[in-house]
Amino acid sequence: MAGILVLNGPNLNLLGVREPGIYGSDTLSDIESRLGARAGAAGIPIDFFQSNAEHALIERIHQAFRDAVDMVIINPGAFTHTSVALRDALLATAIPFIEVHISNVHARESFRRHSYLSDIAQGVICGLGPLGYELALQAALQMTQRSL
Amino acid sequence: MAGILVLNGPNLNLLGVREPGIYGSDTLSDIESRLGARAGAAGIPIDFFQSNAEHALIERIHQAFRDAVDMVIINPGAFTHTSVALRDALLATAIPFIEVHISNVHARESFRRHSYLSDIAQGVICGLGPLGYELALQAALQMTQRSL
Amino acid sequence: MAGILVLNGPNLNLLGVREPGIYGSDTLSDIESRLGARAGAAGIPIDFFQSNAEHALIERIHQAFRDAVDMVIINPGAFTHTSVALRDALLATAIPFIEVHISNVHARESFRRHSYLSDIAQGVICGLGPLGYELALQAALQMTQRSL
Amino acid sequence: MAGILVLNGPNLNLLGVREPGIYGSDTLSDIESRLGARAGAAGIPIDFFQSNAEHALIERIHQAFRDAVDMVIINPGAFTHTSVALRDALLATAIPFIEVHISNVHARESFRRHSYLSDIAQGVICGLGPLGYELALQAALQMTQRSL
Amino acid sequence: MAGILVLNGPNLNLLGVREPGIYGSDTLSDIESRLGARAGAAGIPIDFFQSNAEHALIERIHQAFRDAVDMVIINPGAFTHTSVALRDALLATAIPFIEVHISNVHARESFRRHSYLSDIAQGVICGLGPLGYELALQAALQMTQRSL
Amino acid sequence: MAGILVLNGPNLNLLGVREPGIYGSDTLSDIESRLGARAGAAGIPIDFFQSNAEHALIERIHQAFRDAVDMVIINPGAFTHTSVALRDALLATAIPFIEVHISNVHARESFRRHSYLSDIAQGVICGLGPLGYELALQAALQMTQRSL
Amino acid sequence: MAGILVLNGPNLNLLGVREPGIYGSDTLSDIESRLGARAGAAGIPIDFFQSNAEHALIERIHQAFRDAVDMVIINPGAFTHTSVALRDALLATAIPFIEVHISNVHARESFRRHSYLSDIAQGVICGLGPLGYELALQAALQMTQRSL
Amino acid sequence: MAGILVLNGPNLNLLGVREPGIYGSDTLSDIESRLGARAGAAGIPIDFFQSNAEHALIERIHQAFRDAVDMVIINPGAFTHTSVALRDALLATAIPFIEVHISNVHARESFRRHSYLSDIAQGVICGLGPLGYELALQAALQMTQRSL
Amino acid sequence: MAGILVLNGPNLNLLGVREPGIYGSDTLSDIESRLGARAGAAGIPIDFFQSNAEHALIERIHQAFRDAVDMVIINPGAFTHTSVALRDALLATAIPFIEVHISNVHARESFRRHSYLSDIAQGVICGLGPLGYELALQAALQMTQRSL
Amino acid sequence: MAGILVLNGPNLNLLGVREPGIYGSDTLSDIESRLGARAGAAGIPIDFFQSNAEHALIERIHQAFRDAVDMVIINPGAFTHTSVALRDALLATAIPFIEVHISNVHARESFRRHSYLSDIAQGVICGLGPLGYELALQAALQMTQRSL
Amino acid sequence: MAGILVLNGPNLNLLGVREPGIYGSDTLSDIESRLGARAGAAGIPIDFFQSNAEHALIERIHQAFRDAVDMVIINPGAFTHTSVALRDALLATAIPFIEVHISNVHARESFRRHSYLSDIAQGVICGLGPLGYELALQAALQMTQRSL
Amino acid sequence: MAGILVLNGPNLNLLGVREPGIYGSDTLSDIESRLGARAGAAGIPIDFFQSNAEHALIERIHQAFRDAVDMVIINPGAFTHTSVALRDALLATAIPFIEVHISNVHARESFRRHSYLSDIAQGVICGLGPLGYELALQAALQMTQRSL
Repeated sequence: MAGILVLNGPNLNLLGVREPGIYGSDTLSDIESRLGARAGAAGIPIDFFQSNAEHALIERIHQAFRDAVDMVIINPGAFTHTSVALRDALLATAIPFIEVHISNVHARESFRRHSYLSDIAQGVICGLGPLGYELALQAALQMTQRSL
Repeated sequence: MAGILVLNGPNLNLLGVREPGIYGSDTLSDIESRLGARAGAAGIPIDFFQSNAEHALIERIHQAFRDAVDMVIINPGAFTHTSVALRDALLATAIPFIEVHISNVHARESFRRHSYLSDIAQGVICGLGPLGYELALQAALQMTQRSL
Repeated sequence: MAGILVLNGPNLNLLGVREPGIYGSDTLSDIESRLGARAGAAGIPIDFFQSNAEHALIERIHQAFRDAVDMVIINPGAFTHTSVALRDALLATAIPFIEVHISNVHARESFRRHSYLSDIAQGVICGLGPLGYELALQAALQMTQRSL
Repeated sequence: MAGILVLNGPNLNLLGVREPGIYGSDTLSDIESRLGARAGAAGIPIDFFQSNAEHALIERIHQAFRDAVDMVIINPGAFTHTSVALRDALLATAIPFIEVHISNVHARESFRRHSYLSDIAQGVICGLGPLGYELALQAALQMTQRSL
Repeated sequence: MAGILVLNGPNLNLLGVREPGIYGSDTLSDIESRLGARAGAAGIPIDFFQSNAEHALIERIHQAFRDAVDMVIINPGAFTHTSVALRDALLATAIPFIEVHISNVHARESFRRHSYLSDIAQGVICGLGPLGYELALQAALQMTQRSL
Repeated sequence: MAGILVLNGPNLNLLGVREPGIYGSDTLSDIESRLGARAGAAGIPIDFFQSNAEHALIERIHQAFRDAVDMVIINPGAFTHTSVALRDALLATAIPFIEVHISNVHARESFRRHSYLSDIAQGVICGLGPLGYELALQAALQMTQRSL
Repeated sequence: MAGILVLNGPNLNLLGVREPGIYGSDTLSDIESRLGARAGAAGIPIDFFQSNAEHALIERIHQAFRDAVDMVIINPGAFTHTSVALRDALLATAIPFIEVHISNVHARESFRRHSYLSDIAQGVICGLGPLGYELALQAALQMTQRSL
Repeated sequence: MAGILVLNGPNLNLLGVREPGIYGSDTLSDIESRLGARAGAAGIPIDFFQSNAEHALIERIHQAFRDAVDMVIINPGAFTHTSVALRDALLATAIPFIEVHISNVHARESFRRHSYLSDIAQGVICGLGPLGYELALQAALQMTQRSL
Repeated sequence: MAGILVLNGPNLNLLGVREPGIYGSDTLSDIESRLGARAGAAGIPIDFFQSNAEHALIERIHQAFRDAVDMVIINPGAFTHTSVALRDALLATAIPFIEVHISNVHARESFRRHSYLSDIAQGVICGLGPLGYELALQAALQMTQRSL
Repeated sequence: MAGILVLNGPNLNLLGVREPGIYGSDTLSDIESRLGARAGAAGIPIDFFQSNAEHALIERIHQAFRDAVDMVIINPGAFTHTSVALRDALLATAIPFIEVHISNVHARESFRRHSYLSDIAQGVICGLGPLGYELALQAALQMTQRSL
Repeated sequence: MAGILVLNGPNLNLLGVREPGIYGSDTLSDIESRLGARAGAAGIPIDFFQSNAEHALIERIHQAFRDAVDMVIINPGAFTHTSVALRDALLATAIPFIEVHISNVHARESFRRHSYLSDIAQGVICGLGPLGYELALQAALQMTQRSL
Repeated sequence: MAGILVLNGPNLNLLGVREPGIYGSDTLSDIESRLGARAGAAGIPIDFFQSNAEHALIERIHQAFRDAVDMVIINPGAFTHTSVALRDALLATAIPFIEVHISNVHARESFRRHSYLSDIAQGVICGLGPLGYELALQAALQMTQRSL
């Protein structure tokens, strides 16, 4: 059973360090710990990857395809709005995924209202802070188990 | 403690009856039962209201304001894209709310990509089926308890 | 055999009373009488409903779904241009329908050129006055009888 | 002599209760009292109606047409930006009307800059608070008396 | 009495031969036969013309003007969306006309939603298959007889 | 107490001379007389200035700033739609102002729907003829007296 | 010396016959006679061609290129707004040309404001009635004689 | 008989001095001399005015109205694209006018394709160099004499 | 075996005669000779047709359908950007086709970036000069042979 | 040697007097003194001109052309966004110029993002406060000296 | 002689592995082998590079510039639609290039219709599958040999 | 005291090597030497970094945040127009920065007019060649020293 991969895009390594008013005070590592515990309790393998480089994220998705990962949870950060290449990696590998945003992208600059990923995602969660990842994990676990 | 109000807009009374491919086979009453159980377990009062009439939803929000409801979970259905009046009811009463859509609105007609509510919501969950309501409830419970 | 339902939207109760230059001098009741006679002659049950309230029209469509109505003829009036909820009611119940406009919507304000219903309709008739309803009924009768 | 009708749209029943920074601290009832006194002093009958329901406003306009009301003063609230049906009711009945907004709609969200009523109104007053209604009443009285 | 002219634009000579899923299995000649019979029964002369050439259609309209044709029924095919010259021929000769489309143009490519003819037509019928011509003929007969 | 300044932009010196159907038959001087009488009755100094030159209006506003004028009533005429410099003069001096238009700008050419001043005005009155100035003066007097 | 070619596009054969309010009462033949006389007086050969067919106009331009025509005066009629092929014929042959419109295209439907020819023309004359052709001829004569 | 007024807008005092490639080598005074001679020959008074100031042009038009000038020939220069005030002066005084541009505005920056004057002009001549003024004068003379 | 049809649209008869900088110095006949030789070598029948008339191209496509032509290579010239009728002929006959442009349409006027054919073509080749036809032929031969 | 001209547009005479948060506390005279000193040190003549009138700025540029000024530094203020006439004055005289804005125009209203001057400027400096003029002067001195 | 460089952008390493319906079953290595053989037969050096990283492609282009590569064949994948940096690398190095797409980008999502490279390419080939590379190579060989 | 960081984006390593007409003949290293000397003279540490990789620039900004760098001078090259991730890195770290472009971006392709950085920059300098960096450094030194 290949499990779940959690991807985080550019600048998300700064979580908890800057702009806690927008992004909360949890670090990315805090979030990953909680997700790891939850997935462990459900008996589903989980893996994590953060990069500021588009190509690294693309290649991690290619790897996930070779590893037959069941589901991806992705916070693409700024790449949400600009990366057709990330879209193509997800389209080409056809791994089902949930898109997560910590802040409410609808309440920020107008260019953040467009996502190159949302229309091919299973679903989207935004604005609920770090909790959004945990909710996405619940949904992913439910979908993964249903398809077993 | 006033608790949580779950609102559903037009045509959501048909849930489970038509278009299960898009909206799943749960009825609205099935969903409300699960939410009631969860809220009950958390010791938080919860109430439900569905209407096909914009004014009925608006007046239910006005009532929630008088009742000091802590949080609203709303699936505005088609009113998402057309109702400034619903936006104004939520703006005027300032009750924090989470917007839920059962289907992935980003994967449907382009006019469904615009919401009159998202930019004033706490957060938005879409595409995760009836589970979306339960995830929203978890977020609402967390926010409600944090603000106590 | 469930027959045909003729729906009229907001302000169409004023037909024949105001703006005969645009809408003709027939009242809605005159039109309904002629349609009733024609449907009767064809041995097909027919029903009529006019409302200025969006929710009343939506609920009448829900009812038509429960009644297994074969076809709807609808003049949505101003809701043509603004009601996603009406579109959703027709999408969800999947009752085939013909859209009718008494005046030529293409010759009026530019916002009247967009309809939220036309792309999911069987067909559209506009600008032919009250006769438009009778032509729609002929088409509906032909389609209904063909699918028997 | 049929007099003047003052219409208020959705959420205006909350006037004075919420968002006084934007809408002032007068309640709708305070405003109506002042208008009633002024119209009474001028010897012109005046009537008031507020509803959160579009169809109720439409039907009140139809009634005003049957009552031969001379002029309407209307604050359509959120329906300003979304209701073609209200426009059609005013077009069909051809009652002259003045559009009033308590807040300055030009200084708010961009979608509030478009009105479905302004181009068919006698005139528009916005941003002058509850006083706007009184100024509209003066204009209505002047127009009504001039046309006697 | 000059009667009615039925015009068909480019590619409509292929009717019944290709794409019956969209356009039905009737040939243009089948349709013209039925229309001829109906008009004959009503004692109104009727004429038919199809061309793939814009100029031939324009010159046929000029001829109709010289012949004092009462009404034109036109399915302009692709010229609907591109031919200002056809619009000008109809504007210049001022022959009243009804626009017919066999398929529902609103349910196809977005550029098919704009017509250079609709705003100067008496009315428009679309999506009702070959029956659309017959309904247009009924309307034309009624209008022609009314103006006698 | 510095009082109120009434500004009129280009072509308003023609008031009452041309296009009375749109602008009424009062001359600008008639209007100014009535305003002067009203302000005098209220004991508030009032001053008037009309110019066809943008720079003259700008410099009159600069002067008003040096004179500590309480409020400006401005009918910017055509500059409404084109003058960022006038906007900047009002922004820079921060004198509160009411924008007045004699005709209903919403019912004319589409470019008249945009104003460079409305979003920074206290309020806007349009379409009520010369009476609009008097209503604006009432509002200005009320605001001026309130802030004393 | 090859002289001047005067081209007229679709529907211009109707000049003087219909819509004299817009296009004047001169027939095309009247206009051509006057132009012939003027060119004759200047000793410059002139030729005339009108067609409702785009290809005929294109081929006439190709012919003019082979004949080394000095200048074209063209009233493209409706092809102004739709014919890239005519533009290409003029671009490819590089014959200098003046564009003429009898009516004021700026005062009509908005789509008449765009021309596929104007930016590659020597100049454009519109709204001056049949006189426009004579003015264009004067300009053409001046340009032709200057380049000799 | 009041005659004709020729107006030139900003920077046209530089004619013949700079950019002869675009505007020709005639000075404005050369052009005015030729126009004066032609009008003199026709026995029609003619007057000339150039200004870089919008208000000076507006006031010259107001003066022309008081002088009952028959027709204006105007090259508004850059004000073509920006001056609603000039449009309003011409609308308000209702003096018929012809718009002239020396260069072909369609072949330059895209913002030069829009004119605030063209749709209310009698006609427009552009791209024909200084000759354009003479052609406009001919048209003006013909129109003036016709209306005598 | 029906073979391949090579279509060329308006003005392509001028190839090699004018604008060699853009279109190269080969004549259309040179190109057709080379294509004929290549197809002959592959044992596939090939036919050629050029027209400046849209209807002639449409009717040639209809003929190709009756002849069961395997594949069309088309350089639609200016019709690329304006002809829905050509699109409809290709859609209706469903003959697979490759679109060729001699020049790089992306490097010219912006309106040349839109093609009414590209989205229903097998593929598109542009900017490679007359060689583009030969490359298209190779692709057509490969596709034709593969489907045998 | 003609030297450098520093132009300031409307409302810049208020510098240092109002809105120091946006524009800083230096007066225009302070800025001009510093620039004068710097240019003096470099041995380059420098001149200054501020006006709220577009025509005065245009005529000052015409004068600079007659004086063979080497370079213009211009803060066009609000005319940046609205004055084609200023653009034309600079285009016609071809004096190289640098555009300066004290505030960051990109961080203000969206209409401030468009300049009618930037694409014909040597360069643009914005957001650096009054220092921007000094930096522009350095660049102008370097360019002026380089071209000697 | 520097020869030809074939570049492939993100996700093209997956060729033949996923989505063969869209991209064919050839692997990138299969394609490169065929291209190598063809170039070898023509005696032209050829080199290959694929990367999912924008910077790696940019730096490979810089290297090609230093190596005096004659021509680039590039399938930029998703970077087609998003990478100005790649455009700049090609602009700066001025290496002529042909753009290739395996699928027909015009038949997919609308954002795939815009390329940041096409207008500066020699030519573009799309929709012809892996054969597209071979056709591009033929064109490149022809161009390279011609310029020797 | 952490000093100043100068960042250069993609392709700027080619400075002085290619396109000197647009970018000048200085190499990046020449520019950096001059900046180093100037900063040294002012006693402010300065550091330099160029990369063609977006992630490398992002991570250098993260590092600058950890080093408490006072100010960034950035020429983002092509990333100006495409990188939300770079914007987010600057937003998240809140280091004040000045945006520099060597060429005048307003005078090039229209897509270069939009910057994802300008509205959050302190200021922007463009079109002044390599001198732009030195002017930015002066501004940065002034701002840095002022805030000490």
